[in-house]
Amino acid sequence: MKDEFEWIKTISPASHKQSSLILGIGDDAALIKGSALDQIVCLDTMVEGVHFTKATLTPFHIGHKALAANISDIAAMGGIPLFYLVSISIPAGWDEEELSRIYKGMAALAEEYEMDLIGGDTVSTTGPLVLSVTVLGQVEQGRKLLRSNAEPDDLVFVSGPVGDSAAGLSLLLERSHQGKFSKEESLLVKEHQLPLPHVEAGRILAKSDRRVALNDISDGVASEAHEIAEASGVSITLFYDKLPKSEAIKHYPGEMQDEWMLFGGEDYKLIGTMSPDGFPEVQAACEKAGCCLTVIGRVSKGSPGVVLDRGTSVEKLSKAGYNHFSD
Amino acid sequence: MKDEFEWIKTISPASHKQSSLILGIGDDAALIKGSALDQIVCLDTMVEGVHFTKATLTPFHIGHKALAANISDIAAMGGIPLFYLVSISIPAGWDEEELSRIYKGMAALAEEYEMDLIGGDTVSTTGPLVLSVTVLGQVEQGRKLLRSNAEPDDLVFVSGPVGDSAAGLSLLLERSHQGKFSKEESLLVKEHQLPLPHVEAGRILAKSDRRVALNDISDGVASEAHEIAEASGVSITLFYDKLPKSEAIKHYPGEMQDEWMLFGGEDYKLIGTMSPDGFPEVQAACEKAGCCLTVIGRVSKGSPGVVLDRGTSVEKLSKAGYNHFSD
Repeated sequence: MKDEFEWIKTISPASHKQSSLILGIGDDAALIKGSALDQIVCLDTMVEGVHFTKATLTPFHIGHKALAANISDIAAMGGIPLFYLVSISIPAGWDEEELSRIYKGMAALAEEYEMDLIGGDTVSTTGPLVLSVTVLGQVEQGRKLLRSNAEPDDLVFVSGPVGDSAAGLSLLLERSHQGKFSKEESLLVKEHQLPLPHVEAGRILAKSDRRVALNDISDGVASEAHEIAEASGVSITLFYDKLPKSEAIKHYPGEMQDEWMLFGGEDYKLIGTMSPDGFPEVQAACEKAGCCLTVIGRVSKGSPGVVLDRGTSVEKLSKAGYNHFSD
Repeated sequence: MKDEFEWIKTISPASHKQSSLILGIGDDAALIKGSALDQIVCLDTMVEGVHFTKATLTPFHIGHKALAANISDIAAMGGIPLFYLVSISIPAGWDEEELSRIYKGMAALAEEYEMDLIGGDTVSTTGPLVLSVTVLGQVEQGRKLLRSNAEPDDLVFVSGPVGDSAAGLSLLLERSHQGKFSKEESLLVKEHQLPLPHVEAGRILAKSDRRVALNDISDGVASEAHEIAEASGVSITLFYDKLPKSEAIKHYPGEMQDEWMLFGGEDYKLIGTMSPDGFPEVQAACEKAGCCLTVIGRVSKGSPGVVLDRGTSVEKLSKAGYNHFSD
């Protein structure tokens, strides 16, 4: 990079989409009109060699994914994503063309939601590339889709198939993103590289004005279900046969499917719980909007934890692996 | 670090100070009550080996300074800092005790402003430590203390002595933070390690409800004056003899003083311009509050740029060094 100031000019948007934005990039800080809606703020960091490599993601994917992870957190609060700020620590080995593609990956996804890039910091590093994104969003006053909201007799749902991203990653680790993939494999690879957060489902759940516990599946179904169980002080039973599974992973060995579906991360679907009586209405609204909620389990009283019901057997499901009940 | 989740528990505040905070650390995102005031958002990143080393800053200083740099940006918008989020990328060589001290450095400064830590991300890296802080603040509706606000005949002011941080850094680079320093030297070292942002002066300027151009001095007086001159399309003349200079740097050779005062960064004082008729009132209010505004120059029509008037000679001042007028 020749000049930080010149570089910032190349990534600064020429115009903005949110009318509440008073001032974006170009001063000491961004300035946004106040709003009666509640604000949501989150931050997510990706490190080269830890969260991705040049073999698994192109620069465009890196940008897309860093922003998607944050938008997914906004979705899990039922919110509308509005603004983002980018901290990028750049090693000597990355050229301006690659860096520009990272920003294009973010901008393309931001476009979907009419989000504006409003600030950040561009620095050099002797280490790997570090990309940290902060997202601001908003949600109707008093709506709290917290993981602590689950209650006994709630049903547990997810907003889409799980495990595809982990399956895609395993293909990428095997062949890199320049490898050849069948049509079905490409679907899995795409779920890893260009995941789409489930903002619409989050919005429908928020607008239902019902008690909803909600998480996005960044760390795998088992881990997220555990977080809800622990925060709410309840026991969660997941029905193995109900877990939505994409066609593309069905012909892999069962053990691999299990690993991906239960413990694979970065799916960016939503997992939540709510009372059964409110569910049909929310499910119908989702279907109308082109998203799909599937019931995958039940909440019950009991010591906080997660249980996997396989029909013929019941297992205690740990956060990162599962153990059969000792009998 | 043994466990990310356990670690996050140790840095999560037990209570919060801002009554508008609905939810801090512990869910997908933080949630804040809406407000009619305008919101300010900024982000600043520090990289080990680039912005600091273990020889120049202790972990406590690193935390303090990363947050101070952001609070200073809020101050330069005339705002009140309220919340912060922390992205930390941790190399293997840093132990939990050191990391904990980084957070203590932030918490101690946050305490001064009753700010709450509301989120972030903790990740590992194979490279140097990267600390990125996002700060949210607010300011009265419609107050825009932008660098583009300067107009001809404005006076130029700063909110404190400049160059101390750069002088302190040169001492630290010579002797490290474990070195011995005289009382005067210690003052300079402290300005580098534990800078205090000028929030109070920013608030007084915002509340004056006058047209004010304002920047914080993160990149040196020359660079910041240039930013104002360019954003406002004006020429700025700085009077060398008026630049406030701390006693501690007065016995260094003139050339070093010049270098530190004009081009030294990380002072986190404010530099701004406003119409002379409003200045005495603002200056008096600052004095009452224990801060001090000093007039250091004038704004005039002309091609955007900065000129240094030394009394006997006038020089064109570049952003990062200065050139005498040819002939």
